Amino acid sequence: MKIYLLGSMDAAALSVWQRHLQAEMPEDQVLTSLAPEQKAEVEVAVVANPEPNALLGLPGLRLIQSLWAGVDRLVADPSLPPGVPVCRMVDPQMNVAMAETGQWAVLALHRGFFRYARQQAQACWQPLAQRRADEVRVLVLGWGQMGLALGLRLAAMGYRVSAWRASEEHSGAAEHLGVSVHAGPQALAPALAEVDVLINLLPLTPATRGLLNAPCFAALPQGASVVNLARGAHLVEADLLAALDAGHLSHAVLDVFATEPLPADHPFWQHPAITVLPHAAAQTDPRSAAAVVAANVRALKAGEPLRHVVDVARGY
Amino acid sequence: MKIYLLGSMDAAALSVWQRHLQAEMPEDQVLTSLAPEQKAEVEVAVVANPEPNALLGLPGLRLIQSLWAGVDRLVADPSLPPGVPVCRMVDPQMNVAMAETGQWAVLALHRGFFRYARQQAQACWQPLAQRRADEVRVLVLGWGQMGLALGLRLAAMGYRVSAWRASEEHSGAAEHLGVSVHAGPQALAPALAEVDVLINLLPLTPATRGLLNAPCFAALPQGASVVNLARGAHLVEADLLAALDAGHLSHAVLDVFATEPLPADHPFWQHPAITVLPHAAAQTDPRSAAAVVAANVRALKAGEPLRHVVDVARGY
Repeated sequence: MKIYLLGSMDAAALSVWQRHLQAEMPEDQVLTSLAPEQKAEVEVAVVANPEPNALLGLPGLRLIQSLWAGVDRLVADPSLPPGVPVCRMVDPQMNVAMAETGQWAVLALHRGFFRYARQQAQACWQPLAQRRADEVRVLVLGWGQMGLALGLRLAAMGYRVSAWRASEEHSGAAEHLGVSVHAGPQALAPALAEVDVLINLLPLTPATRGLLNAPCFAALPQGASVVNLARGAHLVEADLLAALDAGHLSHAVLDVFATEPLPADHPFWQHPAITVLPHAAAQTDPRSAAAVVAANVRALKAGEPLRHVVDVARGY
Repeated sequence: MKIYLLGSMDAAALSVWQRHLQAEMPEDQVLTSLAPEQKAEVEVAVVANPEPNALLGLPGLRLIQSLWAGVDRLVADPSLPPGVPVCRMVDPQMNVAMAETGQWAVLALHRGFFRYARQQAQACWQPLAQRRADEVRVLVLGWGQMGLALGLRLAAMGYRVSAWRASEEHSGAAEHLGVSVHAGPQALAPALAEVDVLINLLPLTPATRGLLNAPCFAALPQGASVVNLARGAHLVEADLLAALDAGHLSHAVLDVFATEPLPADHPFWQHPAITVLPHAAAQTDPRSAAAVVAANVRALKAGEPLRHVVDVARGY
């Protein structure tokens, strides 16, 4: 089977992916460029945030497998071939990496380590009052694989963890190992009222775009912090600046932005209450993700159900 | 029973401790100052880093209970009444706080969050290669309650954790839930050779003073990091600066210093590869520690063994 690997990454990274994918699928051909006569033979496209129209002219395509967890740009591409299933990446190692970043952010907010960094810049020695983990309320927005991985780690550390998911389809308020799960638009405002640290791990869909806005921040208690690890378009950047500068929010940790890389003159870079990460909270790991791709390719060949198929209409 | 509470803390903090201790020992009298005629009646001194000679003139003293885990200054006081047992504080909540700080430091070093902070100051967008936790080797120096609390948390997060204890008395290389424990002076250098992050939680004794010095750093692999959460006197500060400036070590996280507060003109404050914390890694929590004191006072009254008695000759 011919597998076409393409996406927005440099040649070295593409080569690493090709090597891992080929090792997992020795009977198949993993190609990073196509001769004209090969186009009709491609049955699987393995994509990493491909340019729009990149999947045109592949009439034999039967599966589009993303290497990234976020598929908002992919499913928004009007040239996406209709009827071909699109699968998200659910990489166990990426879930771990995201949980690590979330743990680090919560620990730093809980224990004042961002404030100590600001104090260090001023040679200021000022210990802060020490709170217990069970005095810190964390709300995880998004209760998929990544939200679950993070939420359960935080609960094990003693934090008071709750979660919110946009869709009501799965559960009203199911309890997962000590985490209260709220679901649906009506449940959001009451959940926000009881939060010290808000962590966004939602997929970007029409329903979640701009969710982190002025009304959301106003619903948070005075002094709360916001951590956005999902997509830049979840956040209304001007509303965040206003809430921080008014002193209503105390800190923000941002990994994703409306424009990436974050422009050099963007006010976030120098803001004392904002921690900027360069979209590095969690990357798909080729060592574990190649096997995930291979499993879906095997399922395709065997006519078995594909895993993590995207509902294109819903957006994830 | 009369219990004398004293130490190097402000009146507000002393009052908080007095309230918690009195609540745990309603039948006893917890005093923060003594009339001359009360001195002979004091049977227990609850101390927080007291000034030298502060325990003179208490002829009825039967127990000196420290509120702090570190007793190096206390046991070095030549005026300490001979024959009166000295007990360290082992506060479960302090162990948790120390484990939190250690987790945060390891996560930040592992995932590059200190480097991202430096990049942010320069508006530099540069994601770093992502390592798995099992690619990061952490060595915990000191395998008491705090080392164990941290080491087991790190092991559960997937890090490759080993530990070293100065004393050989307990075990040669006992395995605690996946942590290799090395013991004794001869085992240190080989253990250091296999470390990405070195975390010091040792007690300060004549045997451990100055342990973090040039030979120790030279034994670490190129690019390793050092986290000192124990005592400033464990570290030879000039040797650390030399190892960082030579590029042999990549980063240091320091909570404790030879002189505290760290003087405003100390080079650590502005060093790009040093994170300074104001002796805030873990504080004893009066809410949990008062019960620990009360348990030892009950043991004293009942003639039962005291817990966490310090070997004054050994220093902890």
